[in-house]
Amino acid sequence: MVPHGEGSEEAMVVQDENRKPISSILIVIAMQTEAMPVVNKLQLKEDLDPVFPKGVPWVRYHGIYKDLHINLVRPGKDLTLGVDSVGTISASLVTYAAIQALQPDLIINAGTAGGFKVKGACISDVFLVSDVAFHDRRIPIPVFDLYGVGLRQCFSTPNLLKELNLKSGKLSTGDSLDMSPQDEASIVANDATVKDMEGAAVAYVADLFKVPAIFIKAVTDIVDGDKPTAEEFLQNLAAVTAALDLAVAQVVDFISGKCLSEL
Amino acid sequence: MVPHGEGSEEAMVVQDENRKPISSILIVIAMQTEAMPVVNKLQLKEDLDPVFPKGVPWVRYHGIYKDLHINLVRPGKDLTLGVDSVGTISASLVTYAAIQALQPDLIINAGTAGGFKVKGACISDVFLVSDVAFHDRRIPIPVFDLYGVGLRQCFSTPNLLKELNLKSGKLSTGDSLDMSPQDEASIVANDATVKDMEGAAVAYVADLFKVPAIFIKAVTDIVDGDKPTAEEFLQNLAAVTAALDLAVAQVVDFISGKCLSEL
Repeated sequence: MVPHGEGSEEAMVVQDENRKPISSILIVIAMQTEAMPVVNKLQLKEDLDPVFPKGVPWVRYHGIYKDLHINLVRPGKDLTLGVDSVGTISASLVTYAAIQALQPDLIINAGTAGGFKVKGACISDVFLVSDVAFHDRRIPIPVFDLYGVGLRQCFSTPNLLKELNLKSGKLSTGDSLDMSPQDEASIVANDATVKDMEGAAVAYVADLFKVPAIFIKAVTDIVDGDKPTAEEFLQNLAAVTAALDLAVAQVVDFISGKCLSEL
Repeated sequence: MVPHGEGSEEAMVVQDENRKPISSILIVIAMQTEAMPVVNKLQLKEDLDPVFPKGVPWVRYHGIYKDLHINLVRPGKDLTLGVDSVGTISASLVTYAAIQALQPDLIINAGTAGGFKVKGACISDVFLVSDVAFHDRRIPIPVFDLYGVGLRQCFSTPNLLKELNLKSGKLSTGDSLDMSPQDEASIVANDATVKDMEGAAVAYVADLFKVPAIFIKAVTDIVDGDKPTAEEFLQNLAAVTAALDLAVAQVVDFISGKCLSEL
């Protein structure tokens, strides 16, 4: 067995990969409203010859932007109900299928999120996430508890963070838009500044295949504020996606021509 | 557009499919402890030439039992923590990949579950599930709320239910082993007799590809009883998997030689 040290073959392969210019980016976005401004800004075209199996509602847009092959995928509309297929299951499935079909060098999961004012989040803030974890997978058996939380560090991009002047914070993921007292306790334990419904699931799948992943989350609602989440979310969705859209475009611009180790 | 009526081409194809003897079954089981007795009883062999991508911990066992091609998959051990990859994300991913690779005629999701004594469940009862839904995906926005609940009817198998004298009940799925008050309210709204951590996710993926799916759940712990769930679950796991194992073998025996419409 090859030791996993600095000088091992595996480590050298990883180092080489990190020094090649990034050529292919996969952007994963859950909602159509969040995705379309990015699709338009990067002038991506909807796929006419789907890479996904027949039957799934998943949508892919693609194009060349500067020197980058860009694929943007969204889980699409629920086939029965017609609403965006939000949440961890759809996000993990479409991320899995896209990694298999497209072999990206880097994944960007972008989307809206709830923010905690007690941790410094304000409406329209854009966060580059440092760590992700789940807050609704409570399994009170030793080791299973850690599996449930699923804490993962995001790919570290110190230059990107500095250059674009983004806020940094931890993200906690769960399948509910609201927050129960149990969710809240887990979110506090996760030390999270932002809360979404997909991030940690995308991170889980990216990690299975060792694809570096970064997370850009724009705040649509203040979870620890006095407005009801669903109302504030819907009220701010359109305006905040504009901030998200701008940030994603800036991130893609920054990535262009760089290798992973320069981010 | 072809009308989806009785006489449509699509309806006729479905009818033909339902009249062909079932030839390939996919069994999805989350935990190794639950899976191994079934693997042994059906004399399945672990896959040496994996159908799954490199990197995933998913495990496949396969074999011929009577006239049936049987594949049993489990999500395997978490690569970092070494515990079974329980819960909806892993279950949906492995179900998706197995459907793509193996094109089964029927899916059986088998496993242990918590039961509600108020709904008539006792330790070691084996349920054939009538409906599945989620109890931890609260999205209080019209239509998204229904998407979150994700109610699905299971494939109807009246003859199987009668012949094997199984109990029938509704299943509610969530990613926590415990039950918060919010989970409980949703489980009551789902009218569930049993509670697990995978079923509705397997149903979601099966439904995407129109693969009929049935759910066999054996009760390891009484959720509305006086013992702590984790303790009762671990105490009964081995004994209850014996009941589960017997039921799965009986179900497979019953299916052998039949077509979907005879189940």
